[in-house]
Amino acid sequence: MNTAILLLHCPDKKGIITEITKFISDNNGNIVYLDQYTDNVDKHFFMRLEWELDGFQIPREKISEYFGTLYSKRYGIDYHVYFSDRKPRMAIFVSKMSHCLYDLLARYEAGEMDVEIPCIVSNHEDLRYVAEQFKIPYYVWNVAPDHSNQAEVEEAQMALMQELKIDFIVLARYMQIIGDKFIAEYPHNIINIHHSFLPAFVGAKPYHQAYERGVKIVGATSHYVTAELDAGPIIEQDVVRITHKDTPESLALKGKDLEKIVLSRAVKKHLERKILTFKNKTIIFG
Amino acid sequence: MNTAILLLHCPDKKGIITEITKFISDNNGNIVYLDQYTDNVDKHFFMRLEWELDGFQIPREKISEYFGTLYSKRYGIDYHVYFSDRKPRMAIFVSKMSHCLYDLLARYEAGEMDVEIPCIVSNHEDLRYVAEQFKIPYYVWNVAPDHSNQAEVEEAQMALMQELKIDFIVLARYMQIIGDKFIAEYPHNIINIHHSFLPAFVGAKPYHQAYERGVKIVGATSHYVTAELDAGPIIEQDVVRITHKDTPESLALKGKDLEKIVLSRAVKKHLERKILTFKNKTIIFG
Amino acid sequence: MNTAILLLHCPDKKGIITEITKFISDNNGNIVYLDQYTDNVDKHFFMRLEWELDGFQIPREKISEYFGTLYSKRYGIDYHVYFSDRKPRMAIFVSKMSHCLYDLLARYEAGEMDVEIPCIVSNHEDLRYVAEQFKIPYYVWNVAPDHSNQAEVEEAQMALMQELKIDFIVLARYMQIIGDKFIAEYPHNIINIHHSFLPAFVGAKPYHQAYERGVKIVGATSHYVTAELDAGPIIEQDVVRITHKDTPESLALKGKDLEKIVLSRAVKKHLERKILTFKNKTIIFG
Amino acid sequence: MNTAILLLHCPDKKGIITEITKFISDNNGNIVYLDQYTDNVDKHFFMRLEWELDGFQIPREKISEYFGTLYSKRYGIDYHVYFSDRKPRMAIFVSKMSHCLYDLLARYEAGEMDVEIPCIVSNHEDLRYVAEQFKIPYYVWNVAPDHSNQAEVEEAQMALMQELKIDFIVLARYMQIIGDKFIAEYPHNIINIHHSFLPAFVGAKPYHQAYERGVKIVGATSHYVTAELDAGPIIEQDVVRITHKDTPESLALKGKDLEKIVLSRAVKKHLERKILTFKNKTIIFG
Repeated sequence: MNTAILLLHCPDKKGIITEITKFISDNNGNIVYLDQYTDNVDKHFFMRLEWELDGFQIPREKISEYFGTLYSKRYGIDYHVYFSDRKPRMAIFVSKMSHCLYDLLARYEAGEMDVEIPCIVSNHEDLRYVAEQFKIPYYVWNVAPDHSNQAEVEEAQMALMQELKIDFIVLARYMQIIGDKFIAEYPHNIINIHHSFLPAFVGAKPYHQAYERGVKIVGATSHYVTAELDAGPIIEQDVVRITHKDTPESLALKGKDLEKIVLSRAVKKHLERKILTFKNKTIIFG
Repeated sequence: MNTAILLLHCPDKKGIITEITKFISDNNGNIVYLDQYTDNVDKHFFMRLEWELDGFQIPREKISEYFGTLYSKRYGIDYHVYFSDRKPRMAIFVSKMSHCLYDLLARYEAGEMDVEIPCIVSNHEDLRYVAEQFKIPYYVWNVAPDHSNQAEVEEAQMALMQELKIDFIVLARYMQIIGDKFIAEYPHNIINIHHSFLPAFVGAKPYHQAYERGVKIVGATSHYVTAELDAGPIIEQDVVRITHKDTPESLALKGKDLEKIVLSRAVKKHLERKILTFKNKTIIFG
Repeated sequence: MNTAILLLHCPDKKGIITEITKFISDNNGNIVYLDQYTDNVDKHFFMRLEWELDGFQIPREKISEYFGTLYSKRYGIDYHVYFSDRKPRMAIFVSKMSHCLYDLLARYEAGEMDVEIPCIVSNHEDLRYVAEQFKIPYYVWNVAPDHSNQAEVEEAQMALMQELKIDFIVLARYMQIIGDKFIAEYPHNIINIHHSFLPAFVGAKPYHQAYERGVKIVGATSHYVTAELDAGPIIEQDVVRITHKDTPESLALKGKDLEKIVLSRAVKKHLERKILTFKNKTIIFG
Repeated sequence: MNTAILLLHCPDKKGIITEITKFISDNNGNIVYLDQYTDNVDKHFFMRLEWELDGFQIPREKISEYFGTLYSKRYGIDYHVYFSDRKPRMAIFVSKMSHCLYDLLARYEAGEMDVEIPCIVSNHEDLRYVAEQFKIPYYVWNVAPDHSNQAEVEEAQMALMQELKIDFIVLARYMQIIGDKFIAEYPHNIINIHHSFLPAFVGAKPYHQAYERGVKIVGATSHYVTAELDAGPIIEQDVVRITHKDTPESLALKGKDLEKIVLSRAVKKHLERKILTFKNKTIIFG
């Protein structure tokens, strides 16, 4: 069953749900999913609609145009149309740690994620054997410790992304700060996993910071990458209880389990087109 | 701001959201809350709508009738209309343990719960002092150990409920099994807290059962009371981690904290009219 | 059954457990609790011992002296001896919110906490009725908005604490910063509840901060008060999941449930003499 | 640093900690880990000791004998000695689902688990490619639907286990009931993952059972296999919150994440020799 997905937000207005759902029902679409949310503080409306393409009177290639003409300008709607039969293309960036990469690839292999993975990118050779196990091309660009070649490396990476028609990028513990130009190419399409319960312990070595502070719980946070470090819209967080017996090393081990699960939940929500971003926050449909 | 709340469910049908929201918007109602859910397994539709009464063209006393005439029969809708300015009236039934009672009354006193509490009912004198602290009438009926007077006691209790116009009853660790006739008077309006993670450890002494089985997590469950013991629709559950060091006594202490919070969350959802029941399960709007 | 409790820490040394337990067993003491922990990073040893006084050969009033003479100097041990039949005396400081106060008093009334509560102190009259419900003396000192009378107020409060022989103080959402002199009088004996997952959202209005940042989980933290704001040794933390639907107000409501439970767990561990502090962290025995 | 690990339990007795630790300190052993627990209900004592072999006066091959002679009979101690430089040998049994297998192998590959994995055993060919990715021998025995060849298959499996010197077996969603004779060969050395929060939903299709009952939380349980189905000593459990929106399929997906983490935590505790079993329960050292 092929479906169209409409993800939108706009200033709130009386009767807007009735209006928008009429667009589907008047054109003989069968809605299979509807969720909406009104932010009563900011008076803003958010919606996700999904309906069967079979029998819908507007041809799929015209849906976005029609909706734009009929609704978008009138209501000031920011929207995007997706189709369920078009698999998103995801690039995974890694460094030396394998846990998030294995977790994503095992899910991919088991058919849990409806996605294409045309490449794995790294700044080290270390994980090439994992890419080979799963027969996915592995590209390496060494970034100099002084970052002197960063701009050049990122140009090459962006060229690869374009060539492989990558829709979004997952930083699976990539351990490099991405440049603003690269980020601007993929707005809200680069997903990072930070190994702390943000906004606690921003930056380097969060498990050591947590150990020093003596917290009783540690966390992991998945967020969209924006220009400010570790400050983009948060998609998912989770935590695990620790004790005084934990060392920075045991924290890191417990944290790895969190990182895997938090990152995969975020990727999954992104793939399902269930995330909207607004004012540096995410609205996540259920 | 006074609002009307419409809680409904019916067999799913194409265009039903548009149809129902039109009832509000065509009559100049301003929707302040809409949530709906379609059960794709059972092909059943559930909805909660809330709109401002101010400016709505149908007089409040006619809303239920109009909706019934115009929609209910046509779509096979089971529905109920509530008004935000009508405070529900809640009776609390207790036995000897004070933790859930104190928790509910402290929230009531702090204005956290929009409710009237005309009475506290018990089978023991033990908690009369708590009722007196909060100046709420306290009624005691002793139930004989052999339950020989149970029918008689419940008749008297039902008479009191009727006299005090009670809308729903909270069993805050009442420790008595309610008779079928009483339950039938308050369908899905008696909320119980069971001190285990149902369906594990049904019946008596669940903390002892948990101790014997050696579980690593214990829970508490709030549910609507139905004729079958501990088998009604589950409203809320929560759990807490335990270890081999816990005794039945320490389990009971940890459990008390769960019971309070799980029961109060369930009561709150009930008060907010955010629960629908269908096929012995609950749909809980967010 | 009366017991003695020995809480100690010292630099780690081979054979120290054997040595210290011999102090009890050689003097015919029956150990009912032993827990110890070695911090292998700092090479430091921590221990909690509890044994029956009945039959123990050293008179209770001499135990501390004997242990000091025989062990403390030799091993550089920092220690304290407590007796189970001596109830600690706790003062509760509150401001305007009742939830933590009610929770502590309900537990006290139900016999869950082995403690005396000789007074409740506040900077407002608001919660006098709660103190009266539980028949506990209630003292009010208004603190000027510019804190001009803070030193004077704290002198008076300290005098009261001394007069009432208070052992430790619980800040149950007191909303005032305690002066250094007061803190120095009660080192690691003032327990605060902060309504965030520290170190995230230090300072004022943490729920608003959490709302602005768009986190998916909020927390509460109980810690010992030290001179630096919200930076003392953490005793207990817990968290609750939130969504984009939460407002600062609903966050505050969810948070209140966390605050109660986190504060009461911390008070309980303190009462049980199961907390040691070292390098601004806590060791919490199970 | 090579260490010896002594895991023991016996009826509780005054002074037993002093006695046993003297065995180490008198023979010049440096204790690096000590944890003990006294079950005050059953008056039973449990202990885990770990000390450096370097400098210890009793030769490693004599430690077990000496401890047995000097202590075991006198105190009725049930004990076992392990050495940190002897890697346990683990067999993994799987059926058709890859998630637990991948998770274990990714941890193994990353050096998170100090173990040898000489074989993977299955009743299906489906996961041979995973075994090949990690270059581990894969053995298949088809079990007839009527189990007519079960005894024969298990004889062959036991022969393989013996040949490969397997210490313990992990059932990573093996989906077959193990025969009593096989279980008797590996008492408390077969670890299973059951996809429910035991004792709720014993047996087949627990996610469907959870869906039908309408629970708000689902869990996973790792336990030692005993003759009674899903009733062995529980090692680890964890849970995840669900809603009315979850289907049996989405429950199964959420559950897979639980199963992986719960199973791996149990395997890790087993590998670290931190589990004792007593009266069908586990004592798990921290």
